[in-house]
Amino acid sequence: MPKKLFEPGYMSKTVRIALDVMGGDSGAPVVIAGADLARERHPDASFILFGDEAIAGPILSRHPKLAAVSRISHTDVAIKMDDKPSQALRYGRKVSSMWQAVDAVRTGDADVVVSAGNTGALMAMAKVNLKSMTGIERPAIAAMWPTMRGESIVLDVGATIGADAQQLVDFAVMGGAMARIVFDIERPTVGLLNIGVEEMKGVESIREAGQHLKAANYPDIDYRGFVESDDIGKGTVDVVVTEGFSGNIALKAAEGTARQIGAYLRAAMNRTWRAKLGYLLAKPAFDALKEKMDPRKVNGGVFLGLNGIVVKSHGGTDAEGFASAIDVGHEMVRYALLEKITAGLSHAGAARQLAVANEVSES
Amino acid sequence: MPKKLFEPGYMSKTVRIALDVMGGDSGAPVVIAGADLARERHPDASFILFGDEAIAGPILSRHPKLAAVSRISHTDVAIKMDDKPSQALRYGRKVSSMWQAVDAVRTGDADVVVSAGNTGALMAMAKVNLKSMTGIERPAIAAMWPTMRGESIVLDVGATIGADAQQLVDFAVMGGAMARIVFDIERPTVGLLNIGVEEMKGVESIREAGQHLKAANYPDIDYRGFVESDDIGKGTVDVVVTEGFSGNIALKAAEGTARQIGAYLRAAMNRTWRAKLGYLLAKPAFDALKEKMDPRKVNGGVFLGLNGIVVKSHGGTDAEGFASAIDVGHEMVRYALLEKITAGLSHAGAARQLAVANEVSES
Repeated sequence: MPKKLFEPGYMSKTVRIALDVMGGDSGAPVVIAGADLARERHPDASFILFGDEAIAGPILSRHPKLAAVSRISHTDVAIKMDDKPSQALRYGRKVSSMWQAVDAVRTGDADVVVSAGNTGALMAMAKVNLKSMTGIERPAIAAMWPTMRGESIVLDVGATIGADAQQLVDFAVMGGAMARIVFDIERPTVGLLNIGVEEMKGVESIREAGQHLKAANYPDIDYRGFVESDDIGKGTVDVVVTEGFSGNIALKAAEGTARQIGAYLRAAMNRTWRAKLGYLLAKPAFDALKEKMDPRKVNGGVFLGLNGIVVKSHGGTDAEGFASAIDVGHEMVRYALLEKITAGLSHAGAARQLAVANEVSES
Repeated sequence: MPKKLFEPGYMSKTVRIALDVMGGDSGAPVVIAGADLARERHPDASFILFGDEAIAGPILSRHPKLAAVSRISHTDVAIKMDDKPSQALRYGRKVSSMWQAVDAVRTGDADVVVSAGNTGALMAMAKVNLKSMTGIERPAIAAMWPTMRGESIVLDVGATIGADAQQLVDFAVMGGAMARIVFDIERPTVGLLNIGVEEMKGVESIREAGQHLKAANYPDIDYRGFVESDDIGKGTVDVVVTEGFSGNIALKAAEGTARQIGAYLRAAMNRTWRAKLGYLLAKPAFDALKEKMDPRKVNGGVFLGLNGIVVKSHGGTDAEGFASAIDVGHEMVRYALLEKITAGLSHAGAARQLAVANEVSES
């Protein structure tokens, strides 16, 4: 847990968490059980559960300690997992559990919203309702990535396709702010994702962003240059910055490979009696490995660049995974994510104005 | 080995393989030892070794059976692994081992060139010297990707950044031709790599390429729609098509994850006596797994879209890995890669002309 960056002012108040009870593949049972797990770890938390009272009520009543710090805000409109964001906005605006949970952050009734629902719909509603922070053109989704050194933050993993140099710099600043909280370091290291083939080292936007980050030398991020996608798992830098298409490609390629190797391993350990016996003996080691590779442990993508904290849990997660997503949201509130981003952006301000001036003079 | 698609005319002649002896991290020792391993498997192969006779000669003389089917073509100019393609062309044109090995394919002295050298330089020299096939704007690098079902072909993994719809369609046709050879199937399945967030399902070029492939319904590729990067390892399709930046990002993210899990696994199996004992018992299973994950077994990226067959081996590979790259090159010659691509492109021709006509009428 972070220490140095602790903000004493936040400690006295409750962290109020809005939950989209209808989101995710399993909906209310997972969300409520997850909230109860998170509650044990965070005695300072309270919850507003947005969803169908007829479904959520009976489940909540089986978790009396959670019920004591929660209230249900009824709506029976749920956003479907595979609807397009435009569709979701059409039927879900104002009335859906997802919209209302996000809206609780806008109105100040909650400090953070956590949803396991449809990612595109959640981002669309968050953008429409919370709006982007001043100076931020495009919000990003930041994911925690397990590495050989611990964890790194990778963004954007799919909020939008493409990013110009300025947007990549914004991602670096926002990812840096998140890293200061999550890793408790004053000046996290940051790399720009690129490919190694010399000929074209860098799409223009990446090259430009790199030049800017190097020249500007921000006080709160330590820019380390380009990284390739095999550097992510090595933990070469604390924050890996890329546009959303390639970030999503990288994330899912890694997830797919981990699952693939897991399947190989299970098959290999089942093939002979010798391997089976070996597996039994090594089981604690395998369990430790499984724990390490467990995607539920690092569940919780954070939407950065909005006027409010939004955490996206995997849709297919279980209660433990959903609780992890709540943990992330709780931490972002406690350690003042939005304030840290604002501070980072104001450091970036002078350099930004300079860049704009240059662009104007060039055109 | 493919059967159905076998071209009898090719069987009678020798497969003449040009090797860049100075390429790769280790150069001549690995290249020559690798060639000797490949020679055992391919009694119909002969070799031209481009490189420094003073270095290659003594090594070759230790492999008398290889020496009997090889000749050395002397040059002492080697392309450095980290030079930019433009630099490499400046000092290496005509005189370097890489250039001369590629040139042997152009002049018809060799049927294929295999190099473990600098990828960017090799592609630049291949483009300048062999030129792109008629109708192909951009060559691509195709990689073999181990999957749960076997292997798939992924392209482009880094020849060029970006691709318009037409180029993606060309990649699909060329990857399909390679898949017909490698997997011995008449109509390989093809998917376009995309990201799943609905809102922006598809950069415009990907969406357009998808519409075209669906409408055109080529006789030699079975287009299956979009795939995400976690589908690659599942083996959802035989050929995954993407532009070079995201292809390279996906490939290296997967490689990095495989290495990362390997490291976790080694550490976990070393932690307690119980795990160590279990490891010993399960060792044959672990060895099978290691074999499966062994990048040397699938070494050999094929450059597609040039007037000649060029195979790129990993720079850091060993003799076994380099021999795999030669295997790939040999197979591409034996089973007439270039003719299959030409046939595929001619099938695509009518649809292409139609598309061009539409573009003209729209503009």
